[in-house]
Amino acid sequence: MTMTTATMSSPSGQPDPGRSVASRVLSVLDAFSGERRRLTLSDISRRTRMPLTTAHRLVGELVSWGALERDRHGRYQIGLHLWEVAALAPRGLGLREVAMPFLEELFVATRQHVQLAVLDDLDVVYIERISSRDAVGVHSRVGGRWPAHTTGVGLVLLAYASRPAQERYLASPLATFTKKTIMTPDALRRVLAEVRRTGYAVSDRQVTLDAVSVAAPVRDAVNEVVAALSVVVRADDPLPGASMPSPPQGTLVPAVLAAARGISRQLLRYPEGP
Amino acid sequence: MTMTTATMSSPSGQPDPGRSVASRVLSVLDAFSGERRRLTLSDISRRTRMPLTTAHRLVGELVSWGALERDRHGRYQIGLHLWEVAALAPRGLGLREVAMPFLEELFVATRQHVQLAVLDDLDVVYIERISSRDAVGVHSRVGGRWPAHTTGVGLVLLAYASRPAQERYLASPLATFTKKTIMTPDALRRVLAEVRRTGYAVSDRQVTLDAVSVAAPVRDAVNEVVAALSVVVRADDPLPGASMPSPPQGTLVPAVLAAARGISRQLLRYPEGP
Repeated sequence: MTMTTATMSSPSGQPDPGRSVASRVLSVLDAFSGERRRLTLSDISRRTRMPLTTAHRLVGELVSWGALERDRHGRYQIGLHLWEVAALAPRGLGLREVAMPFLEELFVATRQHVQLAVLDDLDVVYIERISSRDAVGVHSRVGGRWPAHTTGVGLVLLAYASRPAQERYLASPLATFTKKTIMTPDALRRVLAEVRRTGYAVSDRQVTLDAVSVAAPVRDAVNEVVAALSVVVRADDPLPGASMPSPPQGTLVPAVLAAARGISRQLLRYPEGP
Repeated sequence: MTMTTATMSSPSGQPDPGRSVASRVLSVLDAFSGERRRLTLSDISRRTRMPLTTAHRLVGELVSWGALERDRHGRYQIGLHLWEVAALAPRGLGLREVAMPFLEELFVATRQHVQLAVLDDLDVVYIERISSRDAVGVHSRVGGRWPAHTTGVGLVLLAYASRPAQERYLASPLATFTKKTIMTPDALRRVLAEVRRTGYAVSDRQVTLDAVSVAAPVRDAVNEVVAALSVVVRADDPLPGASMPSPPQGTLVPAVLAAARGISRQLLRYPEGP
């Protein structure tokens, strides 16, 4: 879905004269990433393959609107007004707003990581994460992406995705992080069938060898799975599904399922989406 | 900071031929608001004062990039990819990421609303809010704006704003919501001086007659106030600052101050901003 600079430039790397102004504006935004949150004008010019004068003019318009801001060293960063507009995304903060009270309750009960994610192409995108300061380390960040098959939320979202989307995923290369990562399409097929049978997913040490996640589906007003919710716990904690010592009373799976159902019930009030 | 359609159209209301394509792209995004999260193509054309064909072309580019998405009725909404890019805003999710563990601790201790906000022009913009399901009703939403002088976070942010920013605020009309709202520049001046003296703000029933907020400043690595943190409680709860019954142990003011200082300490690790 994201245009890369490659698709917008000619093979020679020269700016494509046929490239639309709209796509140039959007390519300035795409120059920023989790690893590159602050860029100089020449960084932007280089990363978008636009002449400095063109970049200067577009960046000026983006600053005056509030899509970009300058930091105190004069570098550019994503601006508050873009964040305000983006907060209206139903699959972003809209969903998050409805889910938050349930995520909070789950967090208070477990004091681990509680996560909410949606599927976008082949990745999960994290919409929310609540963490205690002493929870196990995780790689995800809010607004960040991760390969779906390696996470609890991703397994849930893939299990309930359309058949064409599943087949496209199964045909794509599967990223591997640990010896426990699901590595073959056949293994992934079996796991997805099991998720559909039980209604929840357990991702066991697939990203790091010290973390396990338990995830469940969130359904919208027309019963489609639109998001997934998970709790991530340390792998040496009692196995999810088994009885756990207090404070997390009972087991993790019923708590995750109950929270996901609670959010789904709230979404019934939004037949048009949150 | 936001361009309105008025500034981009000629006085006759006809599209301004001198209006840049970049500003047209951005005006499509500004057509959406908290009250209008889903728009048809003709809504967008009308609200941006662009011919239907121009709107159609721009909207197509925005959909293919992911700034807009279509819902199942074919209407347009803000898309997930715009939200992903906006999640990189240091004054949005960047700040929120650093603050979250402290907000969580404060929430677990108080079980009310915990809020984080920044100042933008004459408004506060809410970056985060954590609420229990039975907390007092509030009007703010994450990504939403509110007149600064009527809220605890706003009073803190105004108190530590630059002198020119303060004077501009004092010269602007002051919105009134209840009989307790600060209504005159003189009264506001006195309150801001008191905030600077004590280091925290109490906003007493200024927005609704049942809510009180206690707020404290968050400082960045160069000691500038960049955000404010607040707890909103029911006005008939024991007065903030007075001893409170359990579960919120001790008083609210020290807890809010401690959380704000905790976030400021974390921000010392980000000399370039979060």
